[in-house]
Amino acid sequence: MSVLQCFTHRITMSSPCDLTGLEALFDDGVLRPQEIVAVLGKTEGNGCVNDFSRGYAVTSLRAVLAARLGESPTATQHIPMVMSGGVEGCLSPHLLVFSVRQATVAAGPPALAIGVTGTRRFEPWEIGRAAQIEATAEAVRRAMHDARIAGADDVHLVQVKCPLLTQQKIAAALAQGRDTVTEETYVSMGFSRGASALGVALALGEVGAAQVTEATVCRDHSKWSARASVSAGNELDHCEIIVLGNSRAWAGPDRIAHAVMQDGIDVEALYRVLDTLGLDACRQVSAAARGRIRAVIAKAEASRSGRIRGARHIMWDDSDINPTRHARAMVGGVLAGILGSTELFVSGGAEHQGPEGGGPVAVIAARD
Amino acid sequence: MSVLQCFTHRITMSSPCDLTGLEALFDDGVLRPQEIVAVLGKTEGNGCVNDFSRGYAVTSLRAVLAARLGESPTATQHIPMVMSGGVEGCLSPHLLVFSVRQATVAAGPPALAIGVTGTRRFEPWEIGRAAQIEATAEAVRRAMHDARIAGADDVHLVQVKCPLLTQQKIAAALAQGRDTVTEETYVSMGFSRGASALGVALALGEVGAAQVTEATVCRDHSKWSARASVSAGNELDHCEIIVLGNSRAWAGPDRIAHAVMQDGIDVEALYRVLDTLGLDACRQVSAAARGRIRAVIAKAEASRSGRIRGARHIMWDDSDINPTRHARAMVGGVLAGILGSTELFVSGGAEHQGPEGGGPVAVIAARD
Amino acid sequence: MSVLQCFTHRITMSSPCDLTGLEALFDDGVLRPQEIVAVLGKTEGNGCVNDFSRGYAVTSLRAVLAARLGESPTATQHIPMVMSGGVEGCLSPHLLVFSVRQATVAAGPPALAIGVTGTRRFEPWEIGRAAQIEATAEAVRRAMHDARIAGADDVHLVQVKCPLLTQQKIAAALAQGRDTVTEETYVSMGFSRGASALGVALALGEVGAAQVTEATVCRDHSKWSARASVSAGNELDHCEIIVLGNSRAWAGPDRIAHAVMQDGIDVEALYRVLDTLGLDACRQVSAAARGRIRAVIAKAEASRSGRIRGARHIMWDDSDINPTRHARAMVGGVLAGILGSTELFVSGGAEHQGPEGGGPVAVIAARD
Amino acid sequence: MSVLQCFTHRITMSSPCDLTGLEALFDDGVLRPQEIVAVLGKTEGNGCVNDFSRGYAVTSLRAVLAARLGESPTATQHIPMVMSGGVEGCLSPHLLVFSVRQATVAAGPPALAIGVTGTRRFEPWEIGRAAQIEATAEAVRRAMHDARIAGADDVHLVQVKCPLLTQQKIAAALAQGRDTVTEETYVSMGFSRGASALGVALALGEVGAAQVTEATVCRDHSKWSARASVSAGNELDHCEIIVLGNSRAWAGPDRIAHAVMQDGIDVEALYRVLDTLGLDACRQVSAAARGRIRAVIAKAEASRSGRIRGARHIMWDDSDINPTRHARAMVGGVLAGILGSTELFVSGGAEHQGPEGGGPVAVIAARD
Repeated sequence: MSVLQCFTHRITMSSPCDLTGLEALFDDGVLRPQEIVAVLGKTEGNGCVNDFSRGYAVTSLRAVLAARLGESPTATQHIPMVMSGGVEGCLSPHLLVFSVRQATVAAGPPALAIGVTGTRRFEPWEIGRAAQIEATAEAVRRAMHDARIAGADDVHLVQVKCPLLTQQKIAAALAQGRDTVTEETYVSMGFSRGASALGVALALGEVGAAQVTEATVCRDHSKWSARASVSAGNELDHCEIIVLGNSRAWAGPDRIAHAVMQDGIDVEALYRVLDTLGLDACRQVSAAARGRIRAVIAKAEASRSGRIRGARHIMWDDSDINPTRHARAMVGGVLAGILGSTELFVSGGAEHQGPEGGGPVAVIAARD
Repeated sequence: MSVLQCFTHRITMSSPCDLTGLEALFDDGVLRPQEIVAVLGKTEGNGCVNDFSRGYAVTSLRAVLAARLGESPTATQHIPMVMSGGVEGCLSPHLLVFSVRQATVAAGPPALAIGVTGTRRFEPWEIGRAAQIEATAEAVRRAMHDARIAGADDVHLVQVKCPLLTQQKIAAALAQGRDTVTEETYVSMGFSRGASALGVALALGEVGAAQVTEATVCRDHSKWSARASVSAGNELDHCEIIVLGNSRAWAGPDRIAHAVMQDGIDVEALYRVLDTLGLDACRQVSAAARGRIRAVIAKAEASRSGRIRGARHIMWDDSDINPTRHARAMVGGVLAGILGSTELFVSGGAEHQGPEGGGPVAVIAARD
Repeated sequence: MSVLQCFTHRITMSSPCDLTGLEALFDDGVLRPQEIVAVLGKTEGNGCVNDFSRGYAVTSLRAVLAARLGESPTATQHIPMVMSGGVEGCLSPHLLVFSVRQATVAAGPPALAIGVTGTRRFEPWEIGRAAQIEATAEAVRRAMHDARIAGADDVHLVQVKCPLLTQQKIAAALAQGRDTVTEETYVSMGFSRGASALGVALALGEVGAAQVTEATVCRDHSKWSARASVSAGNELDHCEIIVLGNSRAWAGPDRIAHAVMQDGIDVEALYRVLDTLGLDACRQVSAAARGRIRAVIAKAEASRSGRIRGARHIMWDDSDINPTRHARAMVGGVLAGILGSTELFVSGGAEHQGPEGGGPVAVIAARD
Repeated sequence: MSVLQCFTHRITMSSPCDLTGLEALFDDGVLRPQEIVAVLGKTEGNGCVNDFSRGYAVTSLRAVLAARLGESPTATQHIPMVMSGGVEGCLSPHLLVFSVRQATVAAGPPALAIGVTGTRRFEPWEIGRAAQIEATAEAVRRAMHDARIAGADDVHLVQVKCPLLTQQKIAAALAQGRDTVTEETYVSMGFSRGASALGVALALGEVGAAQVTEATVCRDHSKWSARASVSAGNELDHCEIIVLGNSRAWAGPDRIAHAVMQDGIDVEALYRVLDTLGLDACRQVSAAARGRIRAVIAKAEASRSGRIRGARHIMWDDSDINPTRHARAMVGGVLAGILGSTELFVSGGAEHQGPEGGGPVAVIAARD
């Protein structure tokens, strides 16, 4: 029977324009350029407004891919490349390249499935508002369908890259007599991530349409998705969406599971994901288990309460380091301690992605 | 029999000058001002050259203590107050106040013992050099003797606060025709910490006198102490030293143990310390075990190799956030994940304090 | 005839707790402790939320002053001490100590006059809102009256120190079912400065009461004071106010003048102030003129438009350095180039203090 | 007579990859792609080790230029593109594109002349040392000759882009048993800039060969070039060199002049340059004069003494913002105040480029 297989390639990077690892996979025949359907990457900028490491990595990636395909870089625009800036603390810059291949293999248990899509471009005044919520929800449903994922329960991660407001976009809106959701560029990243996450929650049935309005974004933190992971960047004007789940229509070597960290130090959530994947662990995972892990994707968030289990943190009061940078460093340490590995896709800003101060953690691993 | 008891009080802080928690202990009679022998504190500055949260906390502490004792702040100068700046990520600002009380209790197993002392003032050109190594070693030996700790094996932590070079001290040295170990103020913090740690290693017999010279400091990373924890600050010109160990001459409720993290994500070291203290844990420690933990003291270090278990980190290449800040955030996350608690005394800059990129971790806990 | 004289002492600082310069003035008899009525200071923190250099300097100042006066530090609470953090670029940390003395001298032309006062404490939900505007306006009128300044035209600077919202204050408000003007601590500094400045504008008749409402704050930038200079800090809960002007009821050696910089590089405003004071200059001021200048007080602001004279700046798009830090460095350079001096009280955040992107500049100089 | 003409195009940028301004010049026929000989640019990164805005801009520039020329990006490698990161304070991101055209015009007074060249690649252990000094001096002499500049007196600016040490280069050197000039990546930028500047000084006869050795670099600050302007970046392994001067062999519309700022606030140096160019000014330059100015290139440096004209600055004691960032903001403000313009190529790190704490300032302007 002809089925689809999704492969996850984790590739180390020595700078935002270093693609020698990717080129080596091409050269070795492990990966064919035309099989790539989506790329996630942790790059070494500040992860905030003026993080050009993201755009630089995408530009470099599209140039390499185009050269391999014998096409122009713009011909690769349908492949989402979601770069998340910020590798604070122990985190290590890397790419997660997802490829899909047709194969003739026996039917088996549910395997990793992927669907990718994008929304339309948003005007500056739509960012962080209802238009973004709705367009995102619609796109997620479309991606699930394309990926032949049976139901929302089989979705374990929806990765979204969304736009932010720059000073220029805000000025452009004002010039047209429109107001924007905020006039602070850094703050706009939170609104955009929040609206995207609520769109995911809507599509997955985690919240009802009646429960979510524009006023919910970044205000009512009781509404959230357990499977949304959203990054904002200044290098795009629309949302790019990658849905990951398990499906019997797929037959690759891996599967995915997720859980929700209730706060930034909730290691029990990670252990539950490992249990689900048959990677049982006490203390740090064994080398054998570590060898089966393909990718770890998690959200980090500085709790708005200013507290973690009652104890004060200063992430929101530090005017030298942005709270998302603190939060990624924290969660990176928490996860790396258990996993014994630092190539973790931990992205900041978990508005409506898990409970306030917490966030989803998903692991892709080879089946035992 | 009349014996000594050492008590460890962990007190939360809402700012560097917030001592309401300490005042409450005084008011409740839990702690008597005249019993305080040493204070450690994590304060919320950047932990680097221009971190005034440390001096502010010490000034505030001495004022409160002096008022309680009916003396002038300078009359409290014999009490070392080692503030370590930097509570990145999940870390929480707090004080560890050590008090000693004479008691008539039955002799028991070895209990937490403490000895405190200081070195002479160092000239700018002595900082980070042989004079600092030697004076520190001599002071550590003196503190061990005072604390009636039988041997070096019974010492589990030597906390040192040491000076750094400011632009003014460097200029003063130049004006006297003397050169300093470095002309970079931030870099001087590493040299000063390194010289102090080698002094501790010498005193504890972890390295031989023949093995350590001035040229060892921040160059030969194979020489280190498993029990030194050193912070540098711009608020003092000498070293303050606190030796913590276990001794049969003491009879307080707690004891201390330590282990060495081989790198920043080595959670097995922490689990070994917990095992030693009878706080056995798999995954996150239980609430019962957490309730018995009085203090956690650890060092954090960004490995100079630029790698952790082979994977690249960017802590030394980030010109926006100093590597010590990244490292504290990382180790804070690693330890907090296991302990379920964020009031951890994690200090940065582990030169010669454990192996390159790693560092000691010590826990004080109530006996079972 | 017995008249009042106001003296301005500019004192260099080597750290936030360095008061050797002040002590020397006391020792030399140049300044008597009981004559001090107000202190302004530039301290070397980040000038943002977690800048403890301000509180540290005030604590140190009150301790020194109390010791000289033989009183407790709290007995000096009536003396406003307005520390403005942030000495970016060439700026130099220093104090401006204002003292008042009764003298029997001949009546002369208008001389520097000073009035000081404070508002009541504000609740967290009042910060940045109407209550703060009104209380500030009332206090400014009171200070003008106390200073015997004839009319609003004779006022050349109103320095205000106002509170900000910390994460704890925001949480306290929420706990009482009240919302705050913002939930971002850094953003709250702008609202608090803006409300204070509008209060000054109201008191000086620069805007009418009908023109200013709560909604004006940080939204309608066409309403501003040409003479307000406001700093926010986490070390107080009310506003401290210092009014400086010229008055025939005073007979000290100095007078004050001001002008408004239309943008951050408007040096012509400074030249106009120098002209008014008889310190005519072309290019850099002469050493003789420089010797007559006692104090320079200016506001710095990153224009919200993201442009200066049509050219883009990145002050609002930089997530590593806050815009107020960029702005102080810019205006510090602009003024220091003309004045040939770097002990300038340039404070950031000029919301409603001059036109958008600009701000007042005032100079106190000896009469020729 | 057929002579050469050099044109200077100043182009604003809205991001490191924004080349719409350059494209417009191409489209308008003002500039032909094949005429471009060198590009200088101020980009909006941190100007330090992990500033990817520089490499991103160069990659984007080469892609645009290659597309226009119908070649591959690597075919543009002979065109030096010197990006200097950091537009702190009022500075505005922009490109300075130099083009050369053959023309048949009457001989006239000396006009702007340009010569461009590069050195060989340097090994990690050569950076900041004698090999770099010598190779740079040799390249500068070659560029002068190529530019038909009669003598060293006619050279007014030598712009150099040089490499720095990353953690990876340092590790590579160690792996080959070689040591590097420093093991701090940020510190290496200073050594590399210093060695380059000394190479320029040697080529221009500002210092004698006997006076300059490896030990001079970043140690003996009495040796310097009045015309070197050097930036370090992580995107190249060799030095790129652009020599600018005046020559009778050229007949373009502009000429260049320079002077040396003795410290960061020495505006008189700028006024002298303006005088030389017939752009006489008192206070801020007139709009007419401003219209004639094509480019302003200056170096900024935080004085190592920690003082400017006796007053303390904190640029070297601030662990949150690197001193080069402070210094650019300062000098940007100083120059912008006089010039009324913020598109200024102010680059940081003036080691051996002018006296300690000062640096060269050069202006290219249309002849009157």
